Amino acid sequence: MIVVMKNGASDEQIRGVVDRVRELGLKPHVIMGTERTVVAAIGNKRDEHRQSLESCPGVAEIIPILAPYKVASLEVRPERTVVRVGPLVLGNSHVGVIAGPCSVENEEQTLATARAVKVSGAAALRGGAFKPRTSPYSFQGLKEDGLKILAAARDETDLPVVTEVITPSDVEIVAKYADVLQIGARNMQNYRLLEEAGQAGKPVLLKRGPAASAEELLLAAEYVLNAGNHEVILCERGIRTFETHTRFTLSLATVVWLHERTHLPVIVDPSHGTGHSVLVGRMAAAAVAAGADGLIIEVHPTPERAMSDGYQSLTFQQFGEMMALCRRIADAVGRTIEPAWQSRSNPAAAV
Amino acid sequence: MIVVMKNGASDEQIRGVVDRVRELGLKPHVIMGTERTVVAAIGNKRDEHRQSLESCPGVAEIIPILAPYKVASLEVRPERTVVRVGPLVLGNSHVGVIAGPCSVENEEQTLATARAVKVSGAAALRGGAFKPRTSPYSFQGLKEDGLKILAAARDETDLPVVTEVITPSDVEIVAKYADVLQIGARNMQNYRLLEEAGQAGKPVLLKRGPAASAEELLLAAEYVLNAGNHEVILCERGIRTFETHTRFTLSLATVVWLHERTHLPVIVDPSHGTGHSVLVGRMAAAAVAAGADGLIIEVHPTPERAMSDGYQSLTFQQFGEMMALCRRIADAVGRTIEPAWQSRSNPAAAV
Amino acid sequence: MIVVMKNGASDEQIRGVVDRVRELGLKPHVIMGTERTVVAAIGNKRDEHRQSLESCPGVAEIIPILAPYKVASLEVRPERTVVRVGPLVLGNSHVGVIAGPCSVENEEQTLATARAVKVSGAAALRGGAFKPRTSPYSFQGLKEDGLKILAAARDETDLPVVTEVITPSDVEIVAKYADVLQIGARNMQNYRLLEEAGQAGKPVLLKRGPAASAEELLLAAEYVLNAGNHEVILCERGIRTFETHTRFTLSLATVVWLHERTHLPVIVDPSHGTGHSVLVGRMAAAAVAAGADGLIIEVHPTPERAMSDGYQSLTFQQFGEMMALCRRIADAVGRTIEPAWQSRSNPAAAV
Amino acid sequence: MIVVMKNGASDEQIRGVVDRVRELGLKPHVIMGTERTVVAAIGNKRDEHRQSLESCPGVAEIIPILAPYKVASLEVRPERTVVRVGPLVLGNSHVGVIAGPCSVENEEQTLATARAVKVSGAAALRGGAFKPRTSPYSFQGLKEDGLKILAAARDETDLPVVTEVITPSDVEIVAKYADVLQIGARNMQNYRLLEEAGQAGKPVLLKRGPAASAEELLLAAEYVLNAGNHEVILCERGIRTFETHTRFTLSLATVVWLHERTHLPVIVDPSHGTGHSVLVGRMAAAAVAAGADGLIIEVHPTPERAMSDGYQSLTFQQFGEMMALCRRIADAVGRTIEPAWQSRSNPAAAV
Repeated sequence: MIVVMKNGASDEQIRGVVDRVRELGLKPHVIMGTERTVVAAIGNKRDEHRQSLESCPGVAEIIPILAPYKVASLEVRPERTVVRVGPLVLGNSHVGVIAGPCSVENEEQTLATARAVKVSGAAALRGGAFKPRTSPYSFQGLKEDGLKILAAARDETDLPVVTEVITPSDVEIVAKYADVLQIGARNMQNYRLLEEAGQAGKPVLLKRGPAASAEELLLAAEYVLNAGNHEVILCERGIRTFETHTRFTLSLATVVWLHERTHLPVIVDPSHGTGHSVLVGRMAAAAVAAGADGLIIEVHPTPERAMSDGYQSLTFQQFGEMMALCRRIADAVGRTIEPAWQSRSNPAAAV
Repeated sequence: MIVVMKNGASDEQIRGVVDRVRELGLKPHVIMGTERTVVAAIGNKRDEHRQSLESCPGVAEIIPILAPYKVASLEVRPERTVVRVGPLVLGNSHVGVIAGPCSVENEEQTLATARAVKVSGAAALRGGAFKPRTSPYSFQGLKEDGLKILAAARDETDLPVVTEVITPSDVEIVAKYADVLQIGARNMQNYRLLEEAGQAGKPVLLKRGPAASAEELLLAAEYVLNAGNHEVILCERGIRTFETHTRFTLSLATVVWLHERTHLPVIVDPSHGTGHSVLVGRMAAAAVAAGADGLIIEVHPTPERAMSDGYQSLTFQQFGEMMALCRRIADAVGRTIEPAWQSRSNPAAAV
Repeated sequence: MIVVMKNGASDEQIRGVVDRVRELGLKPHVIMGTERTVVAAIGNKRDEHRQSLESCPGVAEIIPILAPYKVASLEVRPERTVVRVGPLVLGNSHVGVIAGPCSVENEEQTLATARAVKVSGAAALRGGAFKPRTSPYSFQGLKEDGLKILAAARDETDLPVVTEVITPSDVEIVAKYADVLQIGARNMQNYRLLEEAGQAGKPVLLKRGPAASAEELLLAAEYVLNAGNHEVILCERGIRTFETHTRFTLSLATVVWLHERTHLPVIVDPSHGTGHSVLVGRMAAAAVAAGADGLIIEVHPTPERAMSDGYQSLTFQQFGEMMALCRRIADAVGRTIEPAWQSRSNPAAAV
Repeated sequence: MIVVMKNGASDEQIRGVVDRVRELGLKPHVIMGTERTVVAAIGNKRDEHRQSLESCPGVAEIIPILAPYKVASLEVRPERTVVRVGPLVLGNSHVGVIAGPCSVENEEQTLATARAVKVSGAAALRGGAFKPRTSPYSFQGLKEDGLKILAAARDETDLPVVTEVITPSDVEIVAKYADVLQIGARNMQNYRLLEEAGQAGKPVLLKRGPAASAEELLLAAEYVLNAGNHEVILCERGIRTFETHTRFTLSLATVVWLHERTHLPVIVDPSHGTGHSVLVGRMAAAAVAAGADGLIIEVHPTPERAMSDGYQSLTFQQFGEMMALCRRIADAVGRTIEPAWQSRSNPAAAV
């Protein structure tokens, strides 16, 4: 931490800061510049509590030096975390694709989608049973009935199920049916939910909040990691910016940035990240080129009749075309997008 | 809802949209423009489900016309909601000031602060017992012990207590001690929490999320209102923008915009909204000039030693100066900032 | 400048940085932390060139310590700059109000507006003759004819004229008629224009760009100041954010922040800053409460017929009401909004 | 254009809007909804002037339907524009790569870079001679001397020269040496410069401003197109958002969106778009996957000694690796990244 003193700070003010730094268990180091004095505070604590030093007389600014996250850091754990759930592998040379409807609407819609995405090469099924909706007047999901439909689709297709949990008290029921617990963007900083999900014994897919920095995403992951769960999958799904031609601004550079700093796998959601189906395929390809470890994609038999997010859902055909494009990109970057089906030579055969 | 067709959309595509609009229970109305055809869909449903029409062949764009919120709307309920909790009155000519420490750290700190803010004219005490923290390594609050300290401070000063609840299962315990339940910015779209808090029988102070539009804030309020609780207080506390000299960008125009659209009281949090104590006083004054129904302010006996948010907390003296300034501004806009103490001529006497 | 080394940077890499810092004419100072080494580079150069150090092997990050602006800084010149142009005074206890139409459309409209705003207490007339328009199909202004109309309005009302110049080669003609040269938000980083305007011998009103940080605004002001012109007026007019209910997000905290760092006067434009006439009056009041040295307001005889910006223009009556409100706020913060008419007891008499 | 009336608007107010719409030369069409009345105004004018209707009594909102740009639109001109400048081809199956130093510093640096980027497959040389700098204390470029160095590099390598022009009066001198005129992000809305550049008879590379919407970029292009120049190259280079781990947020979805709406070629600048050399290669690859027609990349012999932008410049080796990666991605999407050298079988031979 660097404490920058105001221009003209008095000796007494500098001494005050030095004393306070010592009280905090850190070692102060004073540097007199030509215009300003700075006090470097040496030590390995990350507690943001220390930013209160900004209120000391004569202080202009506090600049943290250490990244605030630890367990998620590549410096702490240099080998990459690989999450494996049946055919879905995230974090090594595989590119794992999770696909399915925004909401589970009924068994027919869900099973048809599961079969179709499997044929095209998806490694897992997504689908929402508990839906966090901006408006209380929107469809809120089928809840446990939806979970049962997802489980039925898994039984038939062997695709593991990724589904969202939106409140701590639902973790148990969702974990009973799901293979991967998804924490949605709105809940990235719902800390009790992160802790609860971290104790459920299932991998956690953590989506970046629309106003969250990449660093805050890593800190949210620390909540899950600290609960003893090391299988955390990060997901870039767009941030909120002034641009309105896309629903969010998908920041693929964040994928590269995260890979430089964390050992956790990073996937991309171009469906929410763009909000328009016509943009999804190309952005999926771009994500694979940027080095994403996986994709999560909304697919629906008839998007114009979807009960949620139809505007950003792909048809089966569009999803197939997207997969063909992504397969070529994966090859170009030395990766494979094929699911890790153990003993089957032809995944489509399982359908 | 207006469905804008693509330039060159075929008659068949237009017919397809017209049929789909009818299926949704709306009345279609086709307008042939010189360059584009649009289909107006008439009816009073607000279900966002209908945006899936964007996926119909030939459709360029869907433009909603009706505001998506209802119960919160000034059009539905033209008289303003006034929330009264003892001396705290929000929504009429009063400007209610809620003040206190970011976190309850111990009894001495909390009581000293309660006494000081009361003397300066605050009408309620704020203080965090359950703290949502970006980092798991930061101080997480005293929990129920903190609530007890707040209750003790209320017993002594008669100031009602405003405190945050961060997860549905804590609503009961928090509501046992608190007079107003605060939903923090990170939880604005934690819908189960909104519903639970809406059933607790206490007014709810709902903070705008840092990436939430003003319209989404109203939709979040609808969750509480729909749970049967009509005492919702909205709070502008800054949004996340590219500007970093303030921690958030406090949007006072949002206060005016909200007053044009909703009957709910709107207060402002210049502490979080600026993130630097030196900016708080002036922005509090600006908020009152903009027509805010109240303020919520962080105050600490020794900000440089605060366990959280010290950089944005006012000292007792700074708070007193802020109140003096705000009192003059309140007069200028025809309002009063004095708490509504029932039977006491001199509020300070109660200390 | 602080050079933060990567965790595990080698001694050789640290030596490389130390050498490079010396080459740049700065004094290196190495601090070995518990997790990272940082190299403080001491000296008073502000050249951003040095950020290229980020490319040195082993470097994680460069953190500048010195503010990049100089002449605009309150540390360099502690007394406030006061700009006086006839009755318009900006930078002391006056609050100077500049008002008029977005575009000069014809003599009648401009004179009627000039008379009306003077009666209500404006100290200067604004009006656009050269209009920068987002679309080439929009009205581009009357050019020199517009300047002549403005000059005629000044002759009649004695209100000094504030008008925009949009390209360096127009500075001469605009300066011939105008009393204050306005640099619009789109041109804040049009450096040749800043330099040219800086040499015209007239005060320069510099608007903040919609994506410019407050620090970049000060750096743009340095271009004018460096051209030898010390009469620079800064103007906050809103930044671009995700929020769309206002055209821009007016950041009044920036006014307070600027007053902490620069001696230059700071005014506010709530017309562009909100984009809706219904929000202007209250935000003007809030700006005065926040300490703004002045206001710039769009006024039009019949806003619904304005050739530009009608949606954000006030009628004469609305402007009068706004001034009455701002007068009370100015009193409350110990300032006066009355123009500094030298020898006239009643400014309205001049009309 | 759709005029949305307020709930409860009177018949007289609706008639007022209808009359005003007719006066503007448009055909009104009234639709009475269940909660609101809207007036559709039919006609093909795009003048934003009409937004002043928002000020008519009883009006809630104005919603434009027609895109405000015309000549740039794919609806107006369905075949794609291909810009050819020697080996550089943008807009067909080629992916044209423009590379070189941020600033021309001296002949040696520029020539060495030109040779190196040619060997790796660049089709054009970039380099700044007139530099727009945030700070007046930063290096401002070698001006005409820089242009001469660029011309010398072209003479030797046959690479066409892309260089920035920052003010209208420099267009002539820059056009004398340059093959493509670049308009930088800060000048995207410098309309006199756009007009002047549009008349210089050279292709114009137009960068998106950091706060400009994609629609505003197209409107800026209309200024150039309207000046009679149809060779406009659009460039996505990142927008300003709350995220600070990258200097800007590169929005690759904008490339796809633009390709859906305009016939103009769209290239990507991952150097400015990320601001850190470690992120450039992967984002270049992602841009090609997203369908970009070209790339513009900063390359420097020794980035840590660059006089500007060293932190985001690639070394020769890094550029070579980036090109190898992009070549594989181009193959995967059915395009070629090889320059269109006419009569040479081996481009490197020319060095």
